[in-house]
Amino acid sequence: MAEENALENAPAQSIPERPKEAAQAGAQPAAEGEKGPSKAALKKAAKEKEKAEKAAKRKAEEEAKKKADEANDVSREDYGELPMLGSNDYLPSNVPRVRLAQIAEQYSETTPMDEAGGPEIKFRATVENARVQSAKLAFLVFKQSSETIQAVVAASETLSRQMVKFCGGIPTESTVLVTGIVKKPKEAIKSCTIGHLEVHIKKLYIESRAEVLPMQVADGERPLPAEGEEQPEEGGPIVTLNTRLTHRVIDLRGKHNRAIFRIKDGVVSLFQEYLRSQGFVGIQTPKLLGAPSEGGSNVFEVKYFNSKAYLAQSPQLYKQMLISAGYERVMEVCPIFRAENSNTARHLTEFTGLDLEMEFEEDYHEVVKVLEDLMLYIFNGLKTKYKKETELIRSVYNVEEFKLPEAGAVPRIPWTEGIQMLRDDGLEIGDYDDLSTPDEKRLGALVLKKYGTDFYVLDKFPLAIRPFYTMPAHDSPAHSKEPVADPNAGYSNSYDFFMRGQEILSGAQRIHNAEFLCKRMREHVTPVDPNSDGLRDYVNSFRYGCPPHAGGGIGLERIVMLYLGLPNIRLASLFPRDPGRLVP
Amino acid sequence: MAEENALENAPAQSIPERPKEAAQAGAQPAAEGEKGPSKAALKKAAKEKEKAEKAAKRKAEEEAKKKADEANDVSREDYGELPMLGSNDYLPSNVPRVRLAQIAEQYSETTPMDEAGGPEIKFRATVENARVQSAKLAFLVFKQSSETIQAVVAASETLSRQMVKFCGGIPTESTVLVTGIVKKPKEAIKSCTIGHLEVHIKKLYIESRAEVLPMQVADGERPLPAEGEEQPEEGGPIVTLNTRLTHRVIDLRGKHNRAIFRIKDGVVSLFQEYLRSQGFVGIQTPKLLGAPSEGGSNVFEVKYFNSKAYLAQSPQLYKQMLISAGYERVMEVCPIFRAENSNTARHLTEFTGLDLEMEFEEDYHEVVKVLEDLMLYIFNGLKTKYKKETELIRSVYNVEEFKLPEAGAVPRIPWTEGIQMLRDDGLEIGDYDDLSTPDEKRLGALVLKKYGTDFYVLDKFPLAIRPFYTMPAHDSPAHSKEPVADPNAGYSNSYDFFMRGQEILSGAQRIHNAEFLCKRMREHVTPVDPNSDGLRDYVNSFRYGCPPHAGGGIGLERIVMLYLGLPNIRLASLFPRDPGRLVP
Repeated sequence: MAEENALENAPAQSIPERPKEAAQAGAQPAAEGEKGPSKAALKKAAKEKEKAEKAAKRKAEEEAKKKADEANDVSREDYGELPMLGSNDYLPSNVPRVRLAQIAEQYSETTPMDEAGGPEIKFRATVENARVQSAKLAFLVFKQSSETIQAVVAASETLSRQMVKFCGGIPTESTVLVTGIVKKPKEAIKSCTIGHLEVHIKKLYIESRAEVLPMQVADGERPLPAEGEEQPEEGGPIVTLNTRLTHRVIDLRGKHNRAIFRIKDGVVSLFQEYLRSQGFVGIQTPKLLGAPSEGGSNVFEVKYFNSKAYLAQSPQLYKQMLISAGYERVMEVCPIFRAENSNTARHLTEFTGLDLEMEFEEDYHEVVKVLEDLMLYIFNGLKTKYKKETELIRSVYNVEEFKLPEAGAVPRIPWTEGIQMLRDDGLEIGDYDDLSTPDEKRLGALVLKKYGTDFYVLDKFPLAIRPFYTMPAHDSPAHSKEPVADPNAGYSNSYDFFMRGQEILSGAQRIHNAEFLCKRMREHVTPVDPNSDGLRDYVNSFRYGCPPHAGGGIGLERIVMLYLGLPNIRLASLFPRDPGRLVP
Repeated sequence: MAEENALENAPAQSIPERPKEAAQAGAQPAAEGEKGPSKAALKKAAKEKEKAEKAAKRKAEEEAKKKADEANDVSREDYGELPMLGSNDYLPSNVPRVRLAQIAEQYSETTPMDEAGGPEIKFRATVENARVQSAKLAFLVFKQSSETIQAVVAASETLSRQMVKFCGGIPTESTVLVTGIVKKPKEAIKSCTIGHLEVHIKKLYIESRAEVLPMQVADGERPLPAEGEEQPEEGGPIVTLNTRLTHRVIDLRGKHNRAIFRIKDGVVSLFQEYLRSQGFVGIQTPKLLGAPSEGGSNVFEVKYFNSKAYLAQSPQLYKQMLISAGYERVMEVCPIFRAENSNTARHLTEFTGLDLEMEFEEDYHEVVKVLEDLMLYIFNGLKTKYKKETELIRSVYNVEEFKLPEAGAVPRIPWTEGIQMLRDDGLEIGDYDDLSTPDEKRLGALVLKKYGTDFYVLDKFPLAIRPFYTMPAHDSPAHSKEPVADPNAGYSNSYDFFMRGQEILSGAQRIHNAEFLCKRMREHVTPVDPNSDGLRDYVNSFRYGCPPHAGGGIGLERIVMLYLGLPNIRLASLFPRDPGRLVP
């Protein structure tokens, strides 16, 4: 009974045709200022009139035929366009709907099924593909979540050719409601994720019709060339990343994108899950600041009523203030804003930070251990829970399996050892020089060779290349009570974590003593003023008793990009922001 | 052996005394222009000289005594100030440390313990209180996480009076390292969370000394008067909210604040946990927008390189665009920015949104059901997992137990019924009038009386008071194909969720059809332009097939405030932002 309501809602409609304007072609008035019509002109007019009458007649005949066809259409209530759900014309059917993934599991490859097929099912899907094979046969591919299935519409005594035509002509990406019988195809359908079943359509209604797409979903499923490789031309036959990002809502429909963003959420959820199990509390620190805090150069300025505010470049200072307030172990997942005018494949002006900070007892390696275990938990979680999604992406971007060490056996390579490995490999480099990106990758290869892992820690970075709040190593001249030639020489209690020679996490023990912090702020290679508006409260928070602490920050998009081997960080952001892009 | 290292690091130091300047009191030069000294003056000078010599002698004697005392101090290596952890002077001891909560559990009230006491333990703590009772006895209260414990320092043959004096004088809020014996006190100590144990101190070192606090932690633990009640005067004896927020890092140390922010993270974690179990995927939508999207009035403007950007007022449009892109069920926990110049107890310019959006099959009440179950899951989770914290807050802000309906039995009150209840109670109100805050609270009381629950849903709000993207109810004139007098009359498929008559969640079915959306944008009571820069991409995303969907948004700070009965929303934000406050 309820199903009948849906039928009433679904009058058969073929795809609307553009109004034919040919009939009015001869009706233009003669240009002004001309004399009365000539003989030739009269003859021409008569001819055109006759032509118009013929066209009108033909149109009327066509319409009559269409009406008759519709009247004779045995399927006329089984297809068409549904009224908008929510409008007065739409009546709910209340027929239960199924998930294709469940059906595929329920009727597996080994389930016996005779020629009559399995059950009749109803489901909503998106049309990935529709084509008319002949007047009597059309094929469609439906997608629902990450599953795709083939469907057949075959004309019969109970299914009209009109319906076949309608189904085969449904625009790609339309949302449809399907009723059909599940059957086994003669051969497995390799192009669909559910290859061992197909749907024989009995009813098909368009729920939300797609207009002509400005790009195809499949365009977004092609792999992007790596940085440095030849890029497709703007406006050329191959859709560029720029076009994909402009039409991001279509681009995101691609199955690779869906997999990327499932994995991205997987990283977030594994991060939170592990840290909550270790006693961390999630926090929300302000993104609107009264003054720039971490150097004024890369900060966005905000009009704040009659004053100015600045967007937080990281939760660093606030995480530490909460440690000083006794919050022991804190974490935050939040947007990070960087006003860096860089247009590379690695920079975004807005990205997501996975941040944490914690007290430790005596040695900052206690924190390094927590971070190592966290990262291993994430990598192992991705491996087991997101295997399918990872394999899908790796089928496009050929990246080797990521080699992991055992828990507790992550190599912690002191900076001096890392430098020695590079020197032994022929690199000329100073003791305190920062590593370039190629140097880092070279070291990654050496570490893989020596330790058999793609994941490792580089420990005790030179003090001079770390931020002012970094604790100098115990034997650093910065700790000297006597004046020293270079207080920025030596090393620090800081570390970076690497994946295949690329940094994914940066962290350190922080200075928890206000006086020493002020000293370091003044003598840092880029000095900052401890009394400035952006830093005063931060510095003061260490005057009221603060335990030793360390922490780190992970760029979420970066970890997704490196884990999957994506050639551009924009691919790891739903709606990426860079100096040239603020839409959609 | 290792412990000995720590001893070497901890030379006995008493609290540094201010340098005595009395000895130099007579050394001021005579005023210029005076004649040679008179007899009386000479006599005076001789007297002063004698006085100064006596003072110097006394001082020398005191210092000698002090040195002798130190030499005789049997405890001289058992107390003092530790060198900064991380510096060259600090050597780790490697003695394992304990958590007080674990000790309290291990040695419970029923554990037998003789007079010699339990084990010797070492732990880090914050000094909540320290006082010298006599030359031979001092008491301290230590806090660690949410636990407090009393400690005793008693002079004996092996513990010097100097050490008693040092311990009793340690500044409040200093971080200390304690070694002591766990014993049972004669009477339970009511003022501490661990009342059945106390620590008899053997060693005590200051790890991070607190300076004089600008406010006491206890000041922040006093309840704040409710809005409308008399507020303390600025600069008066009672610390105002403003002062607390200025010294927020100290204020946050209070046990009530710690409880509030544990509960706040509890809400986030329950929200994510439930929705992930229901197949929702977490998303990160951009906070930097190319154009204001939801009305231009309350939006913050950002300087974006040579152009302008705007801070997102909600993830609303992006959530929907992702539904259109086939993401089915999405959620986001993110900062929300509102440039509203309101200085009330209920407004913040930056707060945290808990947002979700999902596809449904035929009726938006499918989504209402998910939202009801989500809220019940959160409330029940808070009740079981955060009982202790909730009770602590409720002991200060007397709020009655929150009455919940059974799952699946949340009253869904149609707007018309709500209005009728209010009219029956004597309120004069039009059919489509919005409810004022007092009206809402009045309705909350009526609902509690009728349905016995503090939690309920008000359904089918008047169309005119909801945003442009709200789906009109099926019988609304907005769906009429003929021109109508007032397309904004009638109701909509929208809902608010209430706690004790105050809104906590707002949501609706959204329009998923581009043409109808454009129509509603133009004819809305506050019309917007579908072709504007901020809305074009949003509108277009519904042109490529989009399933029906609905969702909702929850203000995180609001739910914490209402659940705990806090009188000001600032108390539910770590570092609140309002038109007048951007620091700390």
